[in-house]
Amino acid sequence: MAGSEQNKLWGGRFVGNTDPIMESFNASIAYDQRMWDADIRGSKAYVRALQKANLVTQHEMNQIHVGLDKIHGEWSSGKFQIKPGDEDIHTANERRLKELIGEAAGKLHTGRSRNDQVVTDMRLWLQDAIATLKGNTIDLINTMVERAAIEIDILFPGYTHMQRAQPIRWSHWILSHAVALSRDVEHVEEIRRRVSVLPLGSGAIAGNPFSIDRELLRKELDFNEISINSMDATGQRDFVAEFLFWGSMCLMHLSKMAEDLILYSTKEFSFVSLSDAYSTGSSLMPQKKNADSLELIRSKAGRVFGRCAGFLMTLKGLPSTYNKDLQEDKEAMFDTYDTLHAVLQVATGVMSTLKVNQKNMKAALSPDMLATDLAYYLVRKGMPFREAHSCSGKAVYHAESKGIPLSQLTVEDLHTFSPLFDSDVSSVWDYTSSVEQYSAQGGTARSSVASQIEHMRAWLKEHRG
Amino acid sequence: MAGSEQNKLWGGRFVGNTDPIMESFNASIAYDQRMWDADIRGSKAYVRALQKANLVTQHEMNQIHVGLDKIHGEWSSGKFQIKPGDEDIHTANERRLKELIGEAAGKLHTGRSRNDQVVTDMRLWLQDAIATLKGNTIDLINTMVERAAIEIDILFPGYTHMQRAQPIRWSHWILSHAVALSRDVEHVEEIRRRVSVLPLGSGAIAGNPFSIDRELLRKELDFNEISINSMDATGQRDFVAEFLFWGSMCLMHLSKMAEDLILYSTKEFSFVSLSDAYSTGSSLMPQKKNADSLELIRSKAGRVFGRCAGFLMTLKGLPSTYNKDLQEDKEAMFDTYDTLHAVLQVATGVMSTLKVNQKNMKAALSPDMLATDLAYYLVRKGMPFREAHSCSGKAVYHAESKGIPLSQLTVEDLHTFSPLFDSDVSSVWDYTSSVEQYSAQGGTARSSVASQIEHMRAWLKEHRG
Amino acid sequence: MAGSEQNKLWGGRFVGNTDPIMESFNASIAYDQRMWDADIRGSKAYVRALQKANLVTQHEMNQIHVGLDKIHGEWSSGKFQIKPGDEDIHTANERRLKELIGEAAGKLHTGRSRNDQVVTDMRLWLQDAIATLKGNTIDLINTMVERAAIEIDILFPGYTHMQRAQPIRWSHWILSHAVALSRDVEHVEEIRRRVSVLPLGSGAIAGNPFSIDRELLRKELDFNEISINSMDATGQRDFVAEFLFWGSMCLMHLSKMAEDLILYSTKEFSFVSLSDAYSTGSSLMPQKKNADSLELIRSKAGRVFGRCAGFLMTLKGLPSTYNKDLQEDKEAMFDTYDTLHAVLQVATGVMSTLKVNQKNMKAALSPDMLATDLAYYLVRKGMPFREAHSCSGKAVYHAESKGIPLSQLTVEDLHTFSPLFDSDVSSVWDYTSSVEQYSAQGGTARSSVASQIEHMRAWLKEHRG
Amino acid sequence: MAGSEQNKLWGGRFVGNTDPIMESFNASIAYDQRMWDADIRGSKAYVRALQKANLVTQHEMNQIHVGLDKIHGEWSSGKFQIKPGDEDIHTANERRLKELIGEAAGKLHTGRSRNDQVVTDMRLWLQDAIATLKGNTIDLINTMVERAAIEIDILFPGYTHMQRAQPIRWSHWILSHAVALSRDVEHVEEIRRRVSVLPLGSGAIAGNPFSIDRELLRKELDFNEISINSMDATGQRDFVAEFLFWGSMCLMHLSKMAEDLILYSTKEFSFVSLSDAYSTGSSLMPQKKNADSLELIRSKAGRVFGRCAGFLMTLKGLPSTYNKDLQEDKEAMFDTYDTLHAVLQVATGVMSTLKVNQKNMKAALSPDMLATDLAYYLVRKGMPFREAHSCSGKAVYHAESKGIPLSQLTVEDLHTFSPLFDSDVSSVWDYTSSVEQYSAQGGTARSSVASQIEHMRAWLKEHRG
Repeated sequence: MAGSEQNKLWGGRFVGNTDPIMESFNASIAYDQRMWDADIRGSKAYVRALQKANLVTQHEMNQIHVGLDKIHGEWSSGKFQIKPGDEDIHTANERRLKELIGEAAGKLHTGRSRNDQVVTDMRLWLQDAIATLKGNTIDLINTMVERAAIEIDILFPGYTHMQRAQPIRWSHWILSHAVALSRDVEHVEEIRRRVSVLPLGSGAIAGNPFSIDRELLRKELDFNEISINSMDATGQRDFVAEFLFWGSMCLMHLSKMAEDLILYSTKEFSFVSLSDAYSTGSSLMPQKKNADSLELIRSKAGRVFGRCAGFLMTLKGLPSTYNKDLQEDKEAMFDTYDTLHAVLQVATGVMSTLKVNQKNMKAALSPDMLATDLAYYLVRKGMPFREAHSCSGKAVYHAESKGIPLSQLTVEDLHTFSPLFDSDVSSVWDYTSSVEQYSAQGGTARSSVASQIEHMRAWLKEHRG
Repeated sequence: MAGSEQNKLWGGRFVGNTDPIMESFNASIAYDQRMWDADIRGSKAYVRALQKANLVTQHEMNQIHVGLDKIHGEWSSGKFQIKPGDEDIHTANERRLKELIGEAAGKLHTGRSRNDQVVTDMRLWLQDAIATLKGNTIDLINTMVERAAIEIDILFPGYTHMQRAQPIRWSHWILSHAVALSRDVEHVEEIRRRVSVLPLGSGAIAGNPFSIDRELLRKELDFNEISINSMDATGQRDFVAEFLFWGSMCLMHLSKMAEDLILYSTKEFSFVSLSDAYSTGSSLMPQKKNADSLELIRSKAGRVFGRCAGFLMTLKGLPSTYNKDLQEDKEAMFDTYDTLHAVLQVATGVMSTLKVNQKNMKAALSPDMLATDLAYYLVRKGMPFREAHSCSGKAVYHAESKGIPLSQLTVEDLHTFSPLFDSDVSSVWDYTSSVEQYSAQGGTARSSVASQIEHMRAWLKEHRG
Repeated sequence: MAGSEQNKLWGGRFVGNTDPIMESFNASIAYDQRMWDADIRGSKAYVRALQKANLVTQHEMNQIHVGLDKIHGEWSSGKFQIKPGDEDIHTANERRLKELIGEAAGKLHTGRSRNDQVVTDMRLWLQDAIATLKGNTIDLINTMVERAAIEIDILFPGYTHMQRAQPIRWSHWILSHAVALSRDVEHVEEIRRRVSVLPLGSGAIAGNPFSIDRELLRKELDFNEISINSMDATGQRDFVAEFLFWGSMCLMHLSKMAEDLILYSTKEFSFVSLSDAYSTGSSLMPQKKNADSLELIRSKAGRVFGRCAGFLMTLKGLPSTYNKDLQEDKEAMFDTYDTLHAVLQVATGVMSTLKVNQKNMKAALSPDMLATDLAYYLVRKGMPFREAHSCSGKAVYHAESKGIPLSQLTVEDLHTFSPLFDSDVSSVWDYTSSVEQYSAQGGTARSSVASQIEHMRAWLKEHRG
Repeated sequence: MAGSEQNKLWGGRFVGNTDPIMESFNASIAYDQRMWDADIRGSKAYVRALQKANLVTQHEMNQIHVGLDKIHGEWSSGKFQIKPGDEDIHTANERRLKELIGEAAGKLHTGRSRNDQVVTDMRLWLQDAIATLKGNTIDLINTMVERAAIEIDILFPGYTHMQRAQPIRWSHWILSHAVALSRDVEHVEEIRRRVSVLPLGSGAIAGNPFSIDRELLRKELDFNEISINSMDATGQRDFVAEFLFWGSMCLMHLSKMAEDLILYSTKEFSFVSLSDAYSTGSSLMPQKKNADSLELIRSKAGRVFGRCAGFLMTLKGLPSTYNKDLQEDKEAMFDTYDTLHAVLQVATGVMSTLKVNQKNMKAALSPDMLATDLAYYLVRKGMPFREAHSCSGKAVYHAESKGIPLSQLTVEDLHTFSPLFDSDVSSVWDYTSSVEQYSAQGGTARSSVASQIEHMRAWLKEHRG
C-alpha cells in the first residue's frame, strides 16, 4: 500500500490510511480508462503550451511526447498495466509517464488541475462519440428513406388512438419516424457545438497562472471555442446532461417506432414480419417468435432517461465549481453512448430486413375508414363540415346497426341523412383515390410522399458530411 | 346535459351518456383556455386558407373573422362564458362562433382536425412564452454583468468541494453564473427554431385533402418552417419535452447559484445579506431572517424536472400519431413557464438588491489558500510541479502542526523542504498579486475578468434582439 | 399593503417591503387552503394541550374553540374570505381567529411553530386521503373479482411479448390485474402507518419548551404514534415521497391494464368494446370510437411519477430540518391524490361496463398456441422436455412451410419428428383440455381460477375494514 | 456459430442467423451470472418437485443434483467457463449440466419457463441482498446511537433554512438522522415480505401443467408465500421497483446527512473534521482536504433514483406478462445494491471516525439564538405569544441597530418593549438552561435525548434479528 500511497497525486499532505472500501468507492479508473486516448491527446497539447510558456524545455517536451506516445501504444495494444493507486486515468497515465521518462514527467501538470484535465478529456471523448452516433442515426434514416421510396405504393390503415383512422401510405408511416430522427441529428449537432468548448487552461478554479496560450490549445485539440470563465469551465457538466437528454429523446422516438412495429407484428395485425435475426423464441413454447429486438429498443428509452434523471438530480443544488459529486458524469455518459450505439444499429438491421405483408395491409382497410371522405363528399357539395360530419356519423351508425359495411348503404339509405347524396357517392369507396386527396404538403398522396422522400434525400446529403 | 351533448364535436355518433367523472377527467378547458388567443389566431389564418381554396366564400370568411374578433374581445375583457360541454378551448371558441354567426361557423373546421389545431395553438403560445422567458433571462444576466463590472475589485475565497481553494474576484463568481445562463439563452433560441414549425394543414393523420395552401398559413402565423410529414406533425411533442428540459437545465443553474448564496448568507460565511424583500422571518423565532427566495429557487429545479420526467414517461412507448395521452403536454408546459417566469424575476430582484460584506470576504482569505502559489514559487525557480506540490504540502502540514499560519513559517523552516526557498518567498503572501497571476483567458486576474465583462456585454447586445 | 404587513406572523422584525412577485412566489394559500379542516383540528387539539399545561385558561380555550368552530363553519359553507397577507392556511385561520375573538388568539401559537403545524396538517389530511383511495381501489378490485367469477368460462389467447402464447381464461387475465392492485392496497396500508405519526409538539427544531403533553395530542388527533425526534419530525417528508411513489406504482399497474385493454379494443383484436360512456369520438372522423378513458389512465402514470421524481429531486441534498424547499410537498401530494381519485373511479366504470366479445376471443385461439401441449404430449410419453420442445418446434415449422394449421399435420408427418407420436395426439387440439392442465396453484385451470377468486374475496373482506 | 446456435434453448425453430450486435444486445449473461447461486438453488428445488410429480426418476434427480453441485463448485472457485451461446445464466447452467450429465439435463426445464425461472432467481438473490443491506444500515445506526450517547453534553447551533435557529444537543442532530435510517430499515423489511413470494410453478403465463407441488417449492426455497396468479407472477417486477425506490429514499436520507456534514466541515463552520481515511487532497492545491466521501454519498442519491426513474419508465405502458423490456430489471437492481452496500459502509466509517470540534461548536452559539427564549420569558409572565414574539423581534432589531449582542440590552432598553421585563431576564442568556426547556418527548433536553437513545437501543435489539 505504501507504493500506492506514493503515486497519489497529493503526495505530501496525508498521514492517515484510507479505508479500502472508500478507496474503491472513490476510484474511477474502472470506467474512466476508456478516455485514455483523449487524456493523452490533452496532455500532448498541454505540454506544447508549457513549452511555449517556457515552463518546459524543448527537450523535456520531446521526452514527454515520446513517453506519451509509448503509453498510447500500450493502451492500443491492450498492454497498459493498471496498478494499485491508479485511481483515475490521469493518475495512471502520469504514473506511467514517470516510470518511462523520470522526473520530467513531474512538469506535465504545471498549472493544470485534474478539474480542467478531466473535463477536457470528456469533451474530447464525447465529440468523437457524437460523431459516431450521428453517423449511426443517419444510416438508419437513410435505410428508412430508401425503403419508403421503394414501397411507396403500399397502402395500409393509419391509426390514431390505436384505432383505424384513415388509409395512408406505408411510406408515409416510415417517413414519419425518419423525420423525427432527423430532428435528433440536428439536435445533436447543436449539442456538439456546445461540447466543443475548450476548458483546458482553467486550472482548479481561478484560471491558469502561467499565461498559457489557450488559443494554441484550442487549435491543437481542434475545439471550436474557448471557455469564457474558469469556474464555470471546471464546474459545469451541462454538455453531459444535454447529451443524456438527447439520448432520451432519440430513444423515445425509437420506442414509438418499436411500439408500432411490435403491434404490426402481432398475429392480429400481421402487417410485418421481423427477420429471424431480430427475433427470438421461447424456452417453453415452440411456436413463439418474439420481437425481442423491438422490445429491447422500447425498453432502453427508460434506461437512458433514468441516467438523465439521475444525473440532473445529482447536479441539483450542488454549489459552484468542482464537487466530487460530478464523478457521476462518466458512467452515465458511457452507458448512454453504448446503448444508443447498439440500439441504432439494431434498429437499422430491423428496418432493412423487415418483411411487409401487403395482402394483410390491404385487407385491413375497411369502408368505415372512409367516413371522413363521405363527409367531404357532402362538403364538396356545399354542406358545412360540421353538418357533413354529423350526417356521415349517422350513416356509420346506421350501417353498424344493420351489420353491413358503410359502403353497402344504398343511395336511398343515405338520402335519409342528406338529399345531397347521389349515385356518384360510389366514387368515395376507393382507397387509392382517398389517399390521393391528401396532396397538400406533408400529406399521404403519392406526390406528397415523393416530395418528402426528395426532401429527406437532400437533407441526408447535407448532414452526412 | 342534452345541450352539452349537442355541443360535442362528434355529435352524431354516440348514443350513451358519459360518466361525470369521466367527463371532467377528459376535459382540458380548465387549463387550455389559456391558449384562447393562439386558437383564434390559428382559426383566422385557417379560414383565409379555406377561402383561397374556395371552401368558404369571401363573405363567410368575413363573417367568421368578425365573429372570432368578437370572441377575442370577450376573452380579453374576461367576459367569455365557458359552458358545460366546452371540453376544450377549440370546442368553446367554435361553439361561441356558432352562437354569434350561425351555420357558417360549421365550415371553419373543414379539413382541419383538433389534432393539427391543438398543436398549432401550442406552438404559437410557446413561441411567445419563450420570447418572454428569454427576455427575463437576459435581464438577469444583464443585472449580473453590470454588478460584476462595479464590484470587480472585491476579492473573496474561491471554493472547490465547499473548501476554501484559492482567492478569486467576487465578479469572477458572478460571471461564472452569468455565463451558464447565457448558454440557456442560446439553447432556448435553438428550441424556439424547432417550435416555429407549422403543423396546421396536417389534419388528423393523413394530411389536408383540400389542397390548402400551407405556405399561406405559415406566413399568416409567422412560422419559420412547415412540418414535413402529417403523422409526425400531429403526433409529436418533442418541442414540449425540449422546453421542459430546458427549464430544468436553467433551474439547475439557478439552483447552483442559489445554493452558493444560501451558503454565503449563513452567519458563518456572512459574505452577503439578502434584501428584506427577498427574506422572510419565522413564526417562532424572532431573530430569524431566512433566505426563502433562494430556497424556493433551489427547489424549483426539482419541480420542473419532475414535469420533464413525467412527460417523457408519458411519451415512452406510445404508438405513433395522436393518442389522448398527449393531453398531459399542456399543464406541464404552462407550469414550467409560470415557474421560470417567477423564478427569473425573483432571481433578478435578489441579485440587484443583495448586499456584499467586503470586510468579511477579505477576512476569510487565509495564507493556506496560497499553498499553490508557494508551489508555483518553486516551479518558477525550476522545480517540477509534482515535487513543488509535495514540498508545499509538507510546509502546510508543518505550519498546521505548529499551529501557525503558513505565511508565518520562516525561511529556515521552509529550507527544510527545499533549498530553493529564499527571502523573496514573502512576496507570495499577497492576495492581490495571487489573483493577478491568473491572466490567461477565463482567469480571475483583473484584466481577464474585465474581458469577460466585455464579452458578455457584446453577447447581450447580440442576443437582446 | 400596510395591513397585509401587519398580518404576517413575524410582525416586528422586518422593515423593508416585499416584491409582489416574491410575495406570490412565496405564498401557498392558493393550494394549502385545502387543509383548512386539518389545520383547525390540529389547533383545537393544541389549545387543549396548552390548557392542560396552564398556558391558556379554560376560558381562553373555550373562546378559541368557539372561534375555530366558527371558522370551520365559514370554510364549510364557502364563506371564508382570504385576505391579502394570508400567505398560508395557518396565517389565514389565525388571522381570522383574532378577528373573531381578539387577543386570546395570540396564545394559540405558544410553543408551536409553523414547522410542526404544517406537517401535522399534512399528516392529518393524507390519512383521510389514503382512506379514500384505499376504498376506491377496493371498489375496483371488487368489480374485477366479481366480473372474473361470472366470466370464468371464457377462453382467449394469453400473450407474452404481445404474441399469442397459450390459451387462458379471461378471468385469469382479470385476476392478474386485481392481484397487482391488492398489493397496492397492502402497500398503502403500510404507508398509512408511517403517516400516522404525530409531529405536533416538535416546535421549529428543538422541541416544545412547555412540557406539552404529546400523548394527549396523539389521542385527540387519533395518530398511531408520536414522532421520536423533533428535528426529524419537522424536517422530513418521507411520507409524502412514499405516497407519491405509491401513486406511481398503482398507476403503473393501471397503465398496464389500460395498455392491454387498448390493444384488445383495437379493430384487429376486437376482444372488448368500451361503453360509450368511456369512449370519445373524433372531431374529424365520424366513424371513430376512441378509448380515451384508457389512454388517459395510461398517461397518468407519467404525470404522477413526474411528481415523485420532482419531489425527490427537490429533497436531494437538502440540509437537515425545515428549508423552504419543502413547500413543494403539497401540490405534489394534492395532484397525486386528485389524479388517483379520478383514475380509480374511471377504471371501475370501465371495468364494470366493458363488453366482452366471446366469439372473437374464441376465434383467436389457434392450434399453434398448443405447440407446448404437443411437446408435453411427448414429455408424458417419456421424452425429455428439451428434446420434446425441439420436436414440437420442427412440427410447427413444417406446418408453417406447408401452410396448414399445426393440428392438420398427420400422424405420419409427426412421425418424422418422433416415433412417440400416435393417433391419440388428436386429443391435444382441444383448448379447454389445454387450460385444464394448469391446475397447479395460480394456474389457468377452472379450479385454480376459482381458488383465486375465493382468495380475493376473502382478501377483500379482510381489507375492506 | 453453429455450436452456439445449438445451445440456444429454442433450438428447432429458427433458420436464420442473428446479427452479432443483436446477439450481444440481447444477452444478459454479462451481468445475470451474478445470480448463479440462486439459479442453482431454484433448479435443485424444481427437480425435487419434478421427481415428486414423477416427471423425473429418483435416479435422474440425483444425477441432476450432483451435476448442479458440481456447477456450484465451478462458480464458487471461479472456474465456470462461459461459452458463446450462453445468453443468460439459465442457459449457461443448463448447457453445462448437459455436458456433465447428458440427456437427463433435458428434463430439468419440464413445465418451467425462463419466465418463472428468472424471477425466482431474482427474488432469491434480492432476499439475501436485502438482509445484507439491512445489516449495513443497522451497523450505521448503531454507530450513530452509541456516538450520540457519548457526546450527549455537546451543544451547538441548530439550523433551519441554514440559519442559526436555536441551541441544540449535537446528539439530537445525530439521532435525527438515525431515526430516519430506522424508518428505512422498517421499510425494507416490508419490501422483503413482498419479495419473499414464490413465482416458480407459474410457467410462461398459464401456470404449471404437471400439478407441481408449489408448497414443496416454497419450503425448499424458504419463501414466505406463493404467488396467487401465474400471469402476474411472471410479468410483474414491483419488488424491484420498490427496492430501487427504497434505495433512493435511504440515499436521500444519507444525502441530507452528508450535506450537513459537508457544511459542518467547511472552514467557516469548522464543527467537524473528517478522518484522513475519508478525505482526499487536490492534485493542484497542497492545502486542500476535501470531504470526498461525503460528496460521493450525496451524489449517489441521484444515481440510484435515476435507476428507479428509468425502470419505472421502462415499465410504464407495457402490456401484461413477460416482455423483453423487463430485462432492464437486473442491472438496476445490482447497481442499487452495490451502491448502497458501499455507501452504508463508508458512512459508518465516516461517522465512527469523525472528530467533533466542541470549542467551535460552543463559540457558534450566540445570544440572538435565544430570541425565542426571550419571547417565552414574556409568555411565562402572561403575555400572549404573538405579542411576545413581536416584542422580542423589536429587541433583536434594536440590538442589531446598536451593534451589540441581544444579551447586552439593558433592562431599561427592554422596558421600552414591555414593562414585563425585569432583572431576572438575565437568566435567559444561558444555553444549557435553554436546551433543558425542551423536555417534551422528542426534544433536545438531556432527558429527552437520553430517552431517544434508549428508544433506539431497544429498536436496534428488536430489528437486529
